[in-house]
Amino acid sequence: MMIYLDCASTSLIKPQCVTDAVCKAMSGNLGNPGRGSGKSSIESSRLLFETRTIIGTLFGMPSPDNVILKSSVTESLNTILIGLLKKGDHVISSVMEHNSVLRPLERLRKSGIITYDLLGADSFGRIKIEDLKGLEKKETKLIILTHASNLCGTIQDISSVRQLLRNKDIFVVIDAAQTAGYIPVNIGNLSADAVAFTGHKGLLGPQGTGGFILNDRINHEMMPVFTGGTGSDSSSLSHPMFLPDKYEAGTANVPGIAGLSAGVNHILEEGLDSITAKNQWLMDHFLNRLKKFSEIFLYGIDISKGRIPCFSLTFSDIDPSLASYVLDNEFGITTRSGLHCAPLAHKVFGTDTSGSLRISFNHLTSECDIDALFSAFSMLKGVSHD
Amino acid sequence: MMIYLDCASTSLIKPQCVTDAVCKAMSGNLGNPGRGSGKSSIESSRLLFETRTIIGTLFGMPSPDNVILKSSVTESLNTILIGLLKKGDHVISSVMEHNSVLRPLERLRKSGIITYDLLGADSFGRIKIEDLKGLEKKETKLIILTHASNLCGTIQDISSVRQLLRNKDIFVVIDAAQTAGYIPVNIGNLSADAVAFTGHKGLLGPQGTGGFILNDRINHEMMPVFTGGTGSDSSSLSHPMFLPDKYEAGTANVPGIAGLSAGVNHILEEGLDSITAKNQWLMDHFLNRLKKFSEIFLYGIDISKGRIPCFSLTFSDIDPSLASYVLDNEFGITTRSGLHCAPLAHKVFGTDTSGSLRISFNHLTSECDIDALFSAFSMLKGVSHD
Repeated sequence: MMIYLDCASTSLIKPQCVTDAVCKAMSGNLGNPGRGSGKSSIESSRLLFETRTIIGTLFGMPSPDNVILKSSVTESLNTILIGLLKKGDHVISSVMEHNSVLRPLERLRKSGIITYDLLGADSFGRIKIEDLKGLEKKETKLIILTHASNLCGTIQDISSVRQLLRNKDIFVVIDAAQTAGYIPVNIGNLSADAVAFTGHKGLLGPQGTGGFILNDRINHEMMPVFTGGTGSDSSSLSHPMFLPDKYEAGTANVPGIAGLSAGVNHILEEGLDSITAKNQWLMDHFLNRLKKFSEIFLYGIDISKGRIPCFSLTFSDIDPSLASYVLDNEFGITTRSGLHCAPLAHKVFGTDTSGSLRISFNHLTSECDIDALFSAFSMLKGVSHD
Repeated sequence: MMIYLDCASTSLIKPQCVTDAVCKAMSGNLGNPGRGSGKSSIESSRLLFETRTIIGTLFGMPSPDNVILKSSVTESLNTILIGLLKKGDHVISSVMEHNSVLRPLERLRKSGIITYDLLGADSFGRIKIEDLKGLEKKETKLIILTHASNLCGTIQDISSVRQLLRNKDIFVVIDAAQTAGYIPVNIGNLSADAVAFTGHKGLLGPQGTGGFILNDRINHEMMPVFTGGTGSDSSSLSHPMFLPDKYEAGTANVPGIAGLSAGVNHILEEGLDSITAKNQWLMDHFLNRLKKFSEIFLYGIDISKGRIPCFSLTFSDIDPSLASYVLDNEFGITTRSGLHCAPLAHKVFGTDTSGSLRISFNHLTSECDIDALFSAFSMLKGVSHD
């Protein structure tokens, strides 16, 4: 039996309801939403509407039309960045970002469209949000920040961003890839204009799902990047500008969305409070066990408060990639090694050469899985239990 | 039992192997490809490699890296158009295109980036490819054409495009949304530089899949539109420029790709010759039955040669939308009514106000399904059997 501790990559082990929903969606009842008047098409449209509604509930967005379904958080972040930013705009982001934010920004910079500055981070991986004022310019159009680091799990103090800005009209966009389904992500409470999410991590849906929630204010400033058939306004060569069609050209991933819907329903039924509490308990257990290993170094926050269950480790005398390989092959424990698509965050911790061993779990993980990890650590060559 | 005759929208009824592959992919063995060294990640990478290989086999592309997997043909066409075209470029397309080509072109035109001209079509829906010479300019960078119309099913004479061009270096891109899995689509035989496909129509995979095949010549002229994490070159803020990662930022739709792979395998095992022959036979059957209904008008080619099994009809005294509604509700037959995301093709046939009733099937459709349709036609109010 495999032990899976790479939930920050994907929630490989799904609740049965998610698998069932995907399989049921493959059984021939769900056509293309918004295309034609057939029952299978209407059934699909209903699925999409219900999915938007429950995602809206989770993120505090009352209008389902403002919930946009895409194929990934990467596609979502690109759609927001490319659709919003114009020549001369300035952006503030941080060194803790994933490449899904850094690379689009860098590409827009190299194309001569934008300039950007990055907030630094302290030794716990906390973005220095108080430095915002120093970076804010009159050309600043957007602050885009990760809600929690995919490298070290540190939750960022997003809710104070807006109040720190001199120009309160600057758009605030949150990358909730690592937090949605783990902790509350409420667009209103975070004073954000848009929140991008992935469907296959904390929301427990299949890979190939994701999207973003946006308010009307940022929507009015944005153009779609990809256009095409929407089943609406078909007679017009111009792509429709109403939500959600504006950002959803092409056929939706109906089986994927069926799975995502089941995943979000699972979270709403379990209750985010209960999920957060379970994760807190598992993190305490993990950290308590970790304390006994003096030759393992943890990056980021060493208590369960202010973090999600995503931990980066290195060892005094074993390469993290080798450790991950041995854990997988000798102990059947899946972890993630190498660089975690967050190059500047690795620099904060000095792990940009070695990479790190990343251990990440969710509320479906058991105490026994974590115990098995530490038993394996005890047996890893060169890692002694003191 | 529902009778499904809307295969040009999506192949709602899948071979069992496709459903099985998707469900198996949800059972926890397939992680994120190219991320980490765990078995589930490697298993996913293998799936993607195998899928690229068999898609390459189907489209005549020997290099699996030149097979790009995306979430839809719309995303693929947008990626090619936006990634290729630069300020001042001229494009030639046709009035027979789907909105997935027309809308991105129109948007690029309105943004002041490109100009474009459209080839007309004759009363059979055949693009007037011989008019190419008159439209070709020194700024012409690209010809983009549909391989077969999603409105009337007419197959276009793509293979003669290159030889008609004065400048043989102009890029030729084919939208094979309606032909892949129905008839041979060989990038070499078509003298094309890229072919975009959807996964959920003729290739029998799930919605949320698609992609494009491209040669190195067009690739060298293209930039990716969306960038982000690829699991490769993670330390760099610049998106990798090697294939397939260049065009595949973000987590792949692994369950979808597993289904697509099974669909393509089904086609390779059945054999495209056998599938084409079965479709030919079904189309002959359909057209023979149709001849007896003098009050039903068929748009496009009225023989089975030169077309795919996608037919647009109107009636002398019943609205096509009403016909579709009655077929669905009274007879359990799914068809598609309205405008079919091809506004200019509707104008060719004068159906831009009424829309049309579209009947489309594939090799999994039975003779009985078609007979049931015509029995229903006989009973439709106002449609008499002579």
